[in-house]
Amino acid sequence: MDKLMQDPNQFVSDIVDGLVRSHPDQYEKVESVNVIKRKGGTPSGHVGLVSGGGSGHEPAHAGYVGDGMLSAAVCGEIFTSPTPDMVLEGIKAADGGSGVLLIVKNYSGDVMNFDMARELAELEGIQTETVIVNDDIAIKNHDDRRGVAGTVFVHKIAGAAAAAGKPLKEVKEIAEKAIRQVRSIGMALSPCYMPESGKPGFELHEDEMEIGIGIHGEKGIERKPISSIKEIVAQLLDKLTSEVTDKRIAVMVNGMGGTPVSELYLTYKYVSEQLEQQEYKIERSYTGNYMTALEMHGFSITLLAVDDELLGYLDAPSNTIGFPVRGE
Amino acid sequence: MDKLMQDPNQFVSDIVDGLVRSHPDQYEKVESVNVIKRKGGTPSGHVGLVSGGGSGHEPAHAGYVGDGMLSAAVCGEIFTSPTPDMVLEGIKAADGGSGVLLIVKNYSGDVMNFDMARELAELEGIQTETVIVNDDIAIKNHDDRRGVAGTVFVHKIAGAAAAAGKPLKEVKEIAEKAIRQVRSIGMALSPCYMPESGKPGFELHEDEMEIGIGIHGEKGIERKPISSIKEIVAQLLDKLTSEVTDKRIAVMVNGMGGTPVSELYLTYKYVSEQLEQQEYKIERSYTGNYMTALEMHGFSITLLAVDDELLGYLDAPSNTIGFPVRGE
Repeated sequence: MDKLMQDPNQFVSDIVDGLVRSHPDQYEKVESVNVIKRKGGTPSGHVGLVSGGGSGHEPAHAGYVGDGMLSAAVCGEIFTSPTPDMVLEGIKAADGGSGVLLIVKNYSGDVMNFDMARELAELEGIQTETVIVNDDIAIKNHDDRRGVAGTVFVHKIAGAAAAAGKPLKEVKEIAEKAIRQVRSIGMALSPCYMPESGKPGFELHEDEMEIGIGIHGEKGIERKPISSIKEIVAQLLDKLTSEVTDKRIAVMVNGMGGTPVSELYLTYKYVSEQLEQQEYKIERSYTGNYMTALEMHGFSITLLAVDDELLGYLDAPSNTIGFPVRGE
Repeated sequence: MDKLMQDPNQFVSDIVDGLVRSHPDQYEKVESVNVIKRKGGTPSGHVGLVSGGGSGHEPAHAGYVGDGMLSAAVCGEIFTSPTPDMVLEGIKAADGGSGVLLIVKNYSGDVMNFDMARELAELEGIQTETVIVNDDIAIKNHDDRRGVAGTVFVHKIAGAAAAAGKPLKEVKEIAEKAIRQVRSIGMALSPCYMPESGKPGFELHEDEMEIGIGIHGEKGIERKPISSIKEIVAQLLDKLTSEVTDKRIAVMVNGMGGTPVSELYLTYKYVSEQLEQQEYKIERSYTGNYMTALEMHGFSITLLAVDDELLGYLDAPSNTIGFPVRGE
């Protein structure tokens, strides 16, 4: 296993330290816990937004902390849910007095621990709500669907609603609307390796690819020989377009961490061509490494059905390292 | 070799198409040649900036085309200099009537072809100047030093000077000042593979690393067992700090394409700690994949000695996908 690292036991805290050191104007670390908060805190009167979960998905979630997106990110160990105490620290860091929305990816550990943290926060008098993102259509059963790259759209949209001064109930409704309308599916040419064990999430032969992978090193739903990008995109879009039928969409081509942007832009060419052939109108597109799985080489496609309201939130200013939007 | 691609022969044109499709508000493709220009062209009265060279370094150089940086990027085949005719198209695309500065990385093919293009442009009445970036200290002989990640700082600084309306002579002088003050060195845990041949730039055993690599798959100056990131950073900084002795610096930790941002931020922790121990004052820092070598897994460190003038240019607004700066 080849990784740039010092000690597997401090892999996550080294990443967190590096993030805060790289962006001292933007971030503060909450003392003695791997929680990154927006410098200066949530503006008074605004809803705070907390997300997080296991680490290894960088720039998620800390990269989305900042003006117009998240107030705090809770950084668990690699692919491991943070404890309720850690999440509680995130909630406290995010609270600006107008309540806090928790944006949680649908994994049982995260759902449980964020829920316990929420109860603790309520005991401390902080009003909280939770939304659960479940955009990964690789899983057939809707209740079991994982939260993947679509979570970034939920951060952006809910963050813009919070920055516009909407109350907690409305920010939650906007987030839930985005969640209803977003779907993703991914693939990988190579697995990722755990820093401690050095073991891959799954074994994959050099000429094989894995369709429907998760973002925690989980293997996919189908393994086959590597085909051309045109065919891979067609297979993924076939599944996505059966669920996202509205024709006005935002598209994300997301790298899994080890994918060079050259290949992501190349992929976007085929994604956009095929969507246009099917008469989708691509209102906005985003290409880059947004929600990763360590150094996995692969990508996911996310489709978000949009209307003018969601487009307005996507276009609102965001001063974040992972999703910068200049605004007008 | 695992790559997301359709056909090795159209690898570069697919990337260029994907870039233009992803950012239709920002880019235009020059007809029938892989040159990307800023939509709307160089503002009248401003110096145009052209860079480029072989492809495979994405987001360089197209990712730096836009307000406040480059006017056009010439995208040769993978690691292959573009022809003089292609560069000429870039110069024409960049010309706003006030001359064009060519920012060239120090590789013999690029230097020769940009120079020939410059002669052709002069024949067509376009005033041009050239600067040559040679920041890679892995090469001992100064004249042979390659242009690597420091080129991005030169784009930013010269671009800001051009956007401020400086005349060609002054933009060139600012670029030369940046070039004099910037140094880089890189390392790799794994090589990159050529799309056509599927061959790696060099063979590297799984537990070995290569110090002093180039950005075209060239092997480095030293091969050794992979050590901890602290030791790797110490070795690279030892070489850099012997050449950059001014204590006010901007730092770039640049990924080589396949390096996840998690590892880059982790690396930045050690880079910043060690520089601070040596009493450097890090005025600005940049962490990300800026100047890559396909899917190579590794990083480079760039140090730029700065003064208030250069900091002003680094902080000036830039509406580019690879180096966005919001400005005040």
